[in-house]
Amino acid sequence: MVGVCREGGKMKAMDSEQLREYGHQMVDFVADYYKTIENFPVLSQVQPGYLRELLPDSAPVHPEPLQDVLDDVKSKIFQGVTHWQSPGYYAYFPSNSSIAGFLGEMLSAGVNIVGFSWISCPAATELEVIVLDWLAKLLQLPHVFLSTGKGGGVIQGTASEAVLVALVAARDRMLKKVGKDSMGKLVVYSADQTHASMQKACQIAGIYPENIRILKTESSSEYALSPQVLSAAISQDVASGLIPLLLCATIGTTSSTAVDPLLALGKIAKSNGIWFHIDGAYAGSACICPEFRQYLDGVEEADSFCMNAHKWLLTNFDCSALWVRDRSALIESLSTYPEYLRNKASEANTVVDYKDWQIPLGRRFRSLKLWMVMRLYGQEGLQSYIRNHISLAKRFEELVLQDSRFEVITPRKFALLCFRLLPPANDETQCDKLNRELLEAVNSSGKMFISHTVLSGKYVLRLAVGAPLTEERHIDIAWQVLQEKATTLLKAYKNDIQIHSNGSV
Amino acid sequence: MVGVCREGGKMKAMDSEQLREYGHQMVDFVADYYKTIENFPVLSQVQPGYLRELLPDSAPVHPEPLQDVLDDVKSKIFQGVTHWQSPGYYAYFPSNSSIAGFLGEMLSAGVNIVGFSWISCPAATELEVIVLDWLAKLLQLPHVFLSTGKGGGVIQGTASEAVLVALVAARDRMLKKVGKDSMGKLVVYSADQTHASMQKACQIAGIYPENIRILKTESSSEYALSPQVLSAAISQDVASGLIPLLLCATIGTTSSTAVDPLLALGKIAKSNGIWFHIDGAYAGSACICPEFRQYLDGVEEADSFCMNAHKWLLTNFDCSALWVRDRSALIESLSTYPEYLRNKASEANTVVDYKDWQIPLGRRFRSLKLWMVMRLYGQEGLQSYIRNHISLAKRFEELVLQDSRFEVITPRKFALLCFRLLPPANDETQCDKLNRELLEAVNSSGKMFISHTVLSGKYVLRLAVGAPLTEERHIDIAWQVLQEKATTLLKAYKNDIQIHSNGSV
Repeated sequence: MVGVCREGGKMKAMDSEQLREYGHQMVDFVADYYKTIENFPVLSQVQPGYLRELLPDSAPVHPEPLQDVLDDVKSKIFQGVTHWQSPGYYAYFPSNSSIAGFLGEMLSAGVNIVGFSWISCPAATELEVIVLDWLAKLLQLPHVFLSTGKGGGVIQGTASEAVLVALVAARDRMLKKVGKDSMGKLVVYSADQTHASMQKACQIAGIYPENIRILKTESSSEYALSPQVLSAAISQDVASGLIPLLLCATIGTTSSTAVDPLLALGKIAKSNGIWFHIDGAYAGSACICPEFRQYLDGVEEADSFCMNAHKWLLTNFDCSALWVRDRSALIESLSTYPEYLRNKASEANTVVDYKDWQIPLGRRFRSLKLWMVMRLYGQEGLQSYIRNHISLAKRFEELVLQDSRFEVITPRKFALLCFRLLPPANDETQCDKLNRELLEAVNSSGKMFISHTVLSGKYVLRLAVGAPLTEERHIDIAWQVLQEKATTLLKAYKNDIQIHSNGSV
Repeated sequence: MVGVCREGGKMKAMDSEQLREYGHQMVDFVADYYKTIENFPVLSQVQPGYLRELLPDSAPVHPEPLQDVLDDVKSKIFQGVTHWQSPGYYAYFPSNSSIAGFLGEMLSAGVNIVGFSWISCPAATELEVIVLDWLAKLLQLPHVFLSTGKGGGVIQGTASEAVLVALVAARDRMLKKVGKDSMGKLVVYSADQTHASMQKACQIAGIYPENIRILKTESSSEYALSPQVLSAAISQDVASGLIPLLLCATIGTTSSTAVDPLLALGKIAKSNGIWFHIDGAYAGSACICPEFRQYLDGVEEADSFCMNAHKWLLTNFDCSALWVRDRSALIESLSTYPEYLRNKASEANTVVDYKDWQIPLGRRFRSLKLWMVMRLYGQEGLQSYIRNHISLAKRFEELVLQDSRFEVITPRKFALLCFRLLPPANDETQCDKLNRELLEAVNSSGKMFISHTVLSGKYVLRLAVGAPLTEERHIDIAWQVLQEKATTLLKAYKNDIQIHSNGSV
């Protein structure tokens, strides 16, 4: 090949045999990573700025050998990696890699097409339409969300983009009706447990900050959004001359996997002409199991529904599935059709052009990995994968419940447990600090990584089971680390109290 | 491993040795793809709906073997693929894969982290900061755009997202000054050659359609935006009480790679308090060569500059680099900080949290591939890669110029040629139709894929050299196909004219 490297041995821009040779080397590198993944601290322990000390200030003039780069990945990059695929990863929510997902990413990067229009790569669009129908069927979504209805599915990068395109579509549909100068009257409804991406979507789409309703939820209803509270807020806004625009409900909130009552909320939304968006980013995956499908009851009222296959369904990041009731709403808001993209197929209106369903123009061939995940694991494999994590989380819950020093904060629904260490002598003023320290201590151990939230003003620990390699023994180790660190901390606290009380005598 | 598959041989969710085995299989599959890539028609020849006929209606219940999936990729998916990496691909703009980029994607999919905050994977953030400084230096960007200045770089998915975040930052900065009820007064300036993503960003950010100025360009100035035209438009808007907000200039427009006069435009923008965004999605890559750097003169006036390393810089899609003069403008518009993401490092304000520089929350480890591309090819390799394509485009230009039946429409600047076939007897009324038919004919040959545009009302063919495997012989084949199809078409036209004129006699 003419091009980058004229001397033998140096890497060419593209060449099938060099790709084969170096590709095999990289497969071994990645396989070895998984083989040794438990040797790394789960949460990276580096200090800010660590990498600048280790890398040169500018790109090399001459090409460097792959082995040097791989050596640097091992010795310099990996120490700064937080290992989301480690079996000891329990923070935030999972973001699954899998063998099938990895292979799908390889293939997608291999063909490296850009599927903005049908014509730019027909298979990319058609496979996406088909696999989102497959996934919709696994989730028992109503027919209206299938491509054969008026709606259809599309892969977005993230749930943030999904809610943004839903909001923009809802906004434009409403402004068309009420006039574009009414922007300042549009009101968006969500709960205090709704993901921050709703807030961000409002910022981007220009919803006035004072028109974003963050409705309060209660621990007594397990942090689910109350239909009464929603109704009251809508009534008040309507009375004030404002225009209710969109409601975002959630199944499986980020803090505690709360499930909003979709059916009741959806009926209120519908009767008020509000766009009803459901965020199932995390818990959507669980709904492929019949025993969890009940949580999705009410989705038939939705205008849009999103779940992240890249969280808990073995599909490498990014792969957020969005279904809409009426695809024309998206297309009306998001389509552009410059001359340089015009083509017969689009003109004949017989094809899907996904560029008009999303923010960007370009898009990767992401359906490949989702298709491979569904085929290589099957419905059966995916369901047993979810159930396994849920049973591991249940095991962890039982362990916590057996230790009276700890408290479970809200009943476990899926594979996340919210819990905390109780302070000595039930001194609530010490509790947040104690749990902050416990979080620091277990995360510094390198053996596990958990995160936190605040519920009803209390600082709470979150342990979300969901990494593909997590087994019973890892749960037991995590619990052991938690108990040990708790013991040490409580001892220090008791000494501290004793010193203070001695001092005060 | 407990999990998906209990029987030996079936694919596990994750397992280092299975990943190794199947990964090697996939590497061979991808290498074989490149080995045989010239056997495929470059532009897929399938009909809409072809894939639905070939795939089942729903996901399989039981897991299927990898070999079955790969067989289906070969026999069913590939016929619907438009092969962007084929040496005969000359449509739109290139979207490079490379060995280094492919390896980077593998590694990124392997570790599969989500780098929203520094803490969620410090290396992902820090490597991105470092490699965007590296790339800024290759492009000789002013110091203000480096992370050590007030600005910095960030990898966006696409140039569409880059211009959207710039617009939202500009909008919010302005509304803060003039009051949020002035939304209807904000005006955005671009040229009739500006990419449609500017228009789409305006739709999403809520700019009023009547306030989007699409300024006319002329063939006499090679479709560059005229500073006089811009000044006049601004004056008129200011006189009407409107508020100039943002100007998008382009180096290397999509239709014809026109280059706007950045310095003159930038000074006008600056003196009017307008956010100056530069879209160098395509031609930005060429500016790493000193002989093309002049086109970037004036970037020192910009508030934001974007180039797509995934187009013409050997970095697999997606990797759009955006630099901003003042990172705080992005952060003020796009940040959210919910409790569940709070952490010491962010609180201490000593780290970059890239979630606040972009639309989505989650993000892939895209800096890995850009880093690998820069190291494995070096500045030298990247420059010679660009120069090779430009010399191939020059060769093609010379071939076209030698054939008097064809016309070059606008002087070639980079590796795109805009040209057309002249009609028999210079009958302009036939010209568009003839070139449309020529486009269809060459694209149906399977040997090449070119696209089109319209310039000054004329239908024009675009041939953009830029695929990593394209060599001189492919250019010669493309020209041969074009000549042959032109001969056939012209013959048919002449016969047609003869029949018509005979008929009318």
